[in-house]
Amino acid sequence: MAFSEIEYGVTDRIATVTLKRPERLNAFTFTMRGELIEAFDQADADDDVRAVVVTGAGRAFCAGADLGGGGGTFGLRDGGETVDGAPRDGGGTVALRIARSLKPVIGAINGPAVGVGVTMTLPMDVRLASETATFGFVFARRGIVTEAASSWFLPRIVGIAQAMEWAATGRVFPASEALEGRLVSRVHAPDELLPAAYALAREIADNTSAVSVAAIRRLMWSGLSAASPWEAHAADSRLMAELGGAPDTVEGVTAFLDKRRAAFPMKVSKDLPPGVPSWPDDPYGV
Amino acid sequence: MAFSEIEYGVTDRIATVTLKRPERLNAFTFTMRGELIEAFDQADADDDVRAVVVTGAGRAFCAGADLGGGGGTFGLRDGGETVDGAPRDGGGTVALRIARSLKPVIGAINGPAVGVGVTMTLPMDVRLASETATFGFVFARRGIVTEAASSWFLPRIVGIAQAMEWAATGRVFPASEALEGRLVSRVHAPDELLPAAYALAREIADNTSAVSVAAIRRLMWSGLSAASPWEAHAADSRLMAELGGAPDTVEGVTAFLDKRRAAFPMKVSKDLPPGVPSWPDDPYGV
Amino acid sequence: MAFSEIEYGVTDRIATVTLKRPERLNAFTFTMRGELIEAFDQADADDDVRAVVVTGAGRAFCAGADLGGGGGTFGLRDGGETVDGAPRDGGGTVALRIARSLKPVIGAINGPAVGVGVTMTLPMDVRLASETATFGFVFARRGIVTEAASSWFLPRIVGIAQAMEWAATGRVFPASEALEGRLVSRVHAPDELLPAAYALAREIADNTSAVSVAAIRRLMWSGLSAASPWEAHAADSRLMAELGGAPDTVEGVTAFLDKRRAAFPMKVSKDLPPGVPSWPDDPYGV
Repeated sequence: MAFSEIEYGVTDRIATVTLKRPERLNAFTFTMRGELIEAFDQADADDDVRAVVVTGAGRAFCAGADLGGGGGTFGLRDGGETVDGAPRDGGGTVALRIARSLKPVIGAINGPAVGVGVTMTLPMDVRLASETATFGFVFARRGIVTEAASSWFLPRIVGIAQAMEWAATGRVFPASEALEGRLVSRVHAPDELLPAAYALAREIADNTSAVSVAAIRRLMWSGLSAASPWEAHAADSRLMAELGGAPDTVEGVTAFLDKRRAAFPMKVSKDLPPGVPSWPDDPYGV
Repeated sequence: MAFSEIEYGVTDRIATVTLKRPERLNAFTFTMRGELIEAFDQADADDDVRAVVVTGAGRAFCAGADLGGGGGTFGLRDGGETVDGAPRDGGGTVALRIARSLKPVIGAINGPAVGVGVTMTLPMDVRLASETATFGFVFARRGIVTEAASSWFLPRIVGIAQAMEWAATGRVFPASEALEGRLVSRVHAPDELLPAAYALAREIADNTSAVSVAAIRRLMWSGLSAASPWEAHAADSRLMAELGGAPDTVEGVTAFLDKRRAAFPMKVSKDLPPGVPSWPDDPYGV
Repeated sequence: MAFSEIEYGVTDRIATVTLKRPERLNAFTFTMRGELIEAFDQADADDDVRAVVVTGAGRAFCAGADLGGGGGTFGLRDGGETVDGAPRDGGGTVALRIARSLKPVIGAINGPAVGVGVTMTLPMDVRLASETATFGFVFARRGIVTEAASSWFLPRIVGIAQAMEWAATGRVFPASEALEGRLVSRVHAPDELLPAAYALAREIADNTSAVSVAAIRRLMWSGLSAASPWEAHAADSRLMAELGGAPDTVEGVTAFLDKRRAAFPMKVSKDLPPGVPSWPDDPYGV
């Protein structure tokens, strides 16, 4: 499948998704929405992909929703899926798809990430930023609300005080403030950003079981949603039993005892144990 | 309405609530409880109020429950509302009222904030402190428990390890420890505290849609309570549809494209969209 | 009861649990699992215990599951309790027992804490580390998953981005990274670790009501699990009523007004008020 507003490629077991409308600062469109969902479907289905890096072409990461529609940009669109009779929030469909990813996702935020440009990064596992990145939860300055399920993600990532300060002011802020507020894990010089993202992806790809990482990603994110540690214990107990005697575990333990790197035989596409949790309720099919 | 233990005023679209029993270090009473709830009712009803700053008169913020009743201070009181047959915790009624506020709330903690004096600040959006502020979750030193729903708020704000260390020791600690533990967002010299609080309030008032901020405040705080991001997505989808073609959104996007400050026409008192979430279950009417 | 793989002792109202298989770097076994649960039962039942310190004998804290079984270590074991038909995760039974503790628990992590060696510390209230400590959520390198209910605990303690980075890479990291990522509260020189842990335990023992601390520990941890602050308010209101006129409260307030140290008369073994919350649902009896 050819993409028109993103680029997707796999090298050395790491997929790269590049937002690619540089002449519009990679502003988000309905087309981009669909292509991002499709790219994550491909990454999940491809056993050669161990991690996904998301970045932007040109000087921006993503400037937010394309406002080419002017004042009417956010008005009701006909057709498409609905939630409670309302059209589904487009940024949310991307965010929820990323939340469901079976591969770990690393955001490499190379420049401005504003509006949906930053909220789409919240379900990624790790966010790294360039010194030239800027951020803005600018929704209140446009008369709309924090979308893309960011009211669930953001206060859990940065705390409610920081989340409310950024969302209530709509302020655009530099990478240093994002780091201090724990929105990003590290800030890099511009030409060191992608190398850092790939180094982290490689650390995962070279050392771990793909099945373990897929199961852990679902376990951990849905654990953040679980009502109590007893729910987590039930999921753990089932998965430890399912994986305990499996080929990857035998290889992982044996390789450790032999002091050599493990060569894990299992594949996400066919060996994912049935106990891997889904997110609670996805009534909308993302 | 005249207040006797607090002061309430509105200047330049910012309300100030001042705890005002300086001769008792602004210790909390049943009267103060009622006046605080009334002040937040007034702020919510007044479209001229875009943000609320809460501070203390004199050298303290609030020294906690007034212990003028001696050893019997926390004994059962007759009359009043009950929860499961027990009198309602007074600090909790204030905390839950602040949690429901439609206007963002900034705590300007100018001196000692102890017991209910600190727990009442937890549902505020941002806490700023003076270098002269001190804090104490002293409940275990008095034989009672962390109240004002702080077992819900505190571990979500500072993490469970920090919350338990402060609550299990009952230690009184300085502003520097509060900052390090992320209980407060910033520490200021005493005479720079209120200017910093007002500057933050002004950043909100001057740049954002009041309806957006009210909707976002409810969305974000109830998102912290939501079971999963799918719940947030349903709320987002509805609100984006309700606000998408509304006057504030048209003005917000148009002003941005015109590179001018927006003049938002909508009012919280009459234009709040129906999709703005309530907190889950408020069986007690606060 | 004599223990074979741990040591348990009480001095000056502080219990110490020492993992004691130094020749195996205190690797975790089924026997150690049972002894840890028994030790926490003893600490809860003994009114002379005001806090529990957990540490390791020799140079390690706990190197993780004992891999003496080779590649088959994590294979299904016959007998014992089950969850949904699967054997219960052993680390989880310890973690959930610690989560239920009525006494505050301080981890004094003196050396490597890897696998279950670190996940068992997550339900402790405070983790202190020696400069010589190392940490690793190495599960993905062994082909298994993050266990001991760590998918519930870890993202709530360190945030989901840090949790996923450590769990997806399986990296072993030093105490400095643990401190930066907020997995531990403070790092100490090796010979200052236990003194720091005991100083914190003493601060609790010398200044607070044991009943208050037990009630607060349950309130705060289950508050982290509560659906909304209204649930917390109901629990608070009941406990404040139950404790308001109780002997510890009268003594706590009177001593404060008299500017003397309180001598609290109530005992956890018989005076715990009925409103002290349990964790939601413990269908498995830990």
